Amino acid sequence: MSDSHPPVRGFRFAGISCGIKADGVPDLGLIMAEDEVPAAALFTRNRVKAAPVQISAERMERGRAQAILVNSGNANACTGKDGIDRCRDTTITLAETLGINEESVLPCSTGIIGRTLPSELIETATPRLLDDLSEDGAGRFAEAIRTTDRFPKMASIQFGVGAEGNATVLGIAKGAGMIHPNMATTLAFVLTDAPMSSSFLHSSLRRAVADSFNAMTVDGETSTNDTIIALTSNKAETAPIRGTDRDARRFQDALGDVLGQLSTSIVRDGEGAQRVVRLEVAGGPSESAARQVAERVAQSLLVKTAVHGCDPNWGRILSAAGMAGVAFDVDKVQLSIGGVPVFKKGQALGPEAEANAREKMRSPEYTILLQLGAGSGKAHYLFCDVGTEYVKFNSSYQS
Amino acid sequence: MSDSHPPVRGFRFAGISCGIKADGVPDLGLIMAEDEVPAAALFTRNRVKAAPVQISAERMERGRAQAILVNSGNANACTGKDGIDRCRDTTITLAETLGINEESVLPCSTGIIGRTLPSELIETATPRLLDDLSEDGAGRFAEAIRTTDRFPKMASIQFGVGAEGNATVLGIAKGAGMIHPNMATTLAFVLTDAPMSSSFLHSSLRRAVADSFNAMTVDGETSTNDTIIALTSNKAETAPIRGTDRDARRFQDALGDVLGQLSTSIVRDGEGAQRVVRLEVAGGPSESAARQVAERVAQSLLVKTAVHGCDPNWGRILSAAGMAGVAFDVDKVQLSIGGVPVFKKGQALGPEAEANAREKMRSPEYTILLQLGAGSGKAHYLFCDVGTEYVKFNSSYQS
Repeated sequence: MSDSHPPVRGFRFAGISCGIKADGVPDLGLIMAEDEVPAAALFTRNRVKAAPVQISAERMERGRAQAILVNSGNANACTGKDGIDRCRDTTITLAETLGINEESVLPCSTGIIGRTLPSELIETATPRLLDDLSEDGAGRFAEAIRTTDRFPKMASIQFGVGAEGNATVLGIAKGAGMIHPNMATTLAFVLTDAPMSSSFLHSSLRRAVADSFNAMTVDGETSTNDTIIALTSNKAETAPIRGTDRDARRFQDALGDVLGQLSTSIVRDGEGAQRVVRLEVAGGPSESAARQVAERVAQSLLVKTAVHGCDPNWGRILSAAGMAGVAFDVDKVQLSIGGVPVFKKGQALGPEAEANAREKMRSPEYTILLQLGAGSGKAHYLFCDVGTEYVKFNSSYQS
Repeated sequence: MSDSHPPVRGFRFAGISCGIKADGVPDLGLIMAEDEVPAAALFTRNRVKAAPVQISAERMERGRAQAILVNSGNANACTGKDGIDRCRDTTITLAETLGINEESVLPCSTGIIGRTLPSELIETATPRLLDDLSEDGAGRFAEAIRTTDRFPKMASIQFGVGAEGNATVLGIAKGAGMIHPNMATTLAFVLTDAPMSSSFLHSSLRRAVADSFNAMTVDGETSTNDTIIALTSNKAETAPIRGTDRDARRFQDALGDVLGQLSTSIVRDGEGAQRVVRLEVAGGPSESAARQVAERVAQSLLVKTAVHGCDPNWGRILSAAGMAGVAFDVDKVQLSIGGVPVFKKGQALGPEAEANAREKMRSPEYTILLQLGAGSGKAHYLFCDVGTEYVKFNSSYQS
């Protein structure tokens, strides 16, 4: 996914190594706009918020920003007042070096929790970080924000705006383990040149996140550091996008596509994951009920291990659905796996159906469709299998 | 735990093989009272309820029962009307053979979901099952109800009642994988001779279950078949127990102890589990808030894998706590693992503390104490580690 992405007018990117991680692995990234630009952000709902989340959330009240400063290797979470001070120091050094307002720098961190952030390494590296800025540096930025990611995650879409103009949406994300609704251990950055206000950007972002980052799970965990930030340079040559006209729809579609691609790649990168399942729940009494069922099934460890073992275990799926707190009649339930019906009208369809479904489950990506009844509520959820690799990894990861 | 348990006056037990499981493994059990006696029961809250749960729940409305008929190897869940009919047939055959009311037979099943119950095997074996009944047959019954259990689960307590009398509480359970609050894939049976009404028995059972079976988790799953049934023969020589006098307290304590022992042994038998952790949450704003936090932490897959790897990963514990929807100030949190403080006043206590905690985590059973703040709310939760064995087992279990 990180092959080739167009630059986005008005943004430059950097990614270098500052020494937080061992062996010179990239660990410091920067996204810069030319000026303060409209910004929107969503943060973790975890009560335990890392220092950079606290600072960025406060600064986002202005709805504008110029720089996003990200380090990997250290989460600066559960680090008390010292963590807040050190985080702020890194943004002050960057702002002073550039001669900009420190309030327009949004800090993000990801990595090990509870260790002192070596902020002096970031401050010392700041001139070098600025030297590294370039319009085509998004790939280096994507590398610098990785932690347990097996691969960097980028996605972009270009679309026509106005009479003859065009605009770009570029997304860059990191995240693998601990992925869960409400954004989990995820950092994601969206850059666009499509002109709009920060409030329009914010509402578009919320909508797109609901169907992507908030509808995926690897292991049911949510982190202290999750952040999604969107900036627009407003450089595309068209009138500001607002309302629900053609340009607004195109922007929302592009944003949805980019975040959808990023969230899929994050689930695909689930620690030890071999398979990505798109769970579709339909026929629910309401959309929120369908979402509840989807969430419960997608987070079931027994379902995830069944997926790992290519086991068309409809019993586990129904049992998980039954615990979602949503009323349904099992005699009206239909379930298909990879397009193969395995359960209908309260009963299994037998060994042949299961053998066919088992075959489909060997694919790296497939869909499970759970039809609850005759209602109109539907929802989807992305999840991955949990295999022994996941457990090995998370039993030995450095605390 | 199954070594030696006293008989309970007024009850006989049986456990035989009827051919549901291969190789002549015991798979059919019976508990019989001499007459219809006061009965209380709690059933799964899963929306998908197995046939025997539907039938037993209906019959329990009378608050009386004489027999509990249990098969393992087949859950008779998701089997439609045929499943209901077959379940009822087994109870009719038993009732007719004995000349008792079929409504006083409570059926239970555990095993594979979605397969037709071979009810004819149970019916054919019924005379042999009755021949096997004996006062000291509880061990054979415990064997017959096992599925993935590595060991049978029994616990008993005797206590004085009235002036010179004594009473017994005997508990027999099965359950290993898929254990979760609200009783999960658990069958548990409590027999006592302490005299009381069915409503007193019911309220006592509810209280005892709240602190035992509903405060444990192996993997966050809850099954279609969970059932806890209590019967009293009323044979102990004392006045009926009611209210809150000495006998009532002794009975409640005995019941709590027996269910506590059974639930601990179920968690200890979690599929692939090597360690049992008692999580104590204290200082919460309320008891229900403390319970919410305990539940969230105990169900975190990252916490479970950290426990598996003897990793004193307080970051995962705090992060899981932060997702419980309970407000707390991380700067006031204290955390100790196996009695070793590792986190205090918003910060980690360092590598030496972690090394000491890591040593404690090698024990098969230890306590994690999470002090949220200065509130009076507290709760506990039992959970086990999740290791590669769990995943291997649940990736290959027959669907």
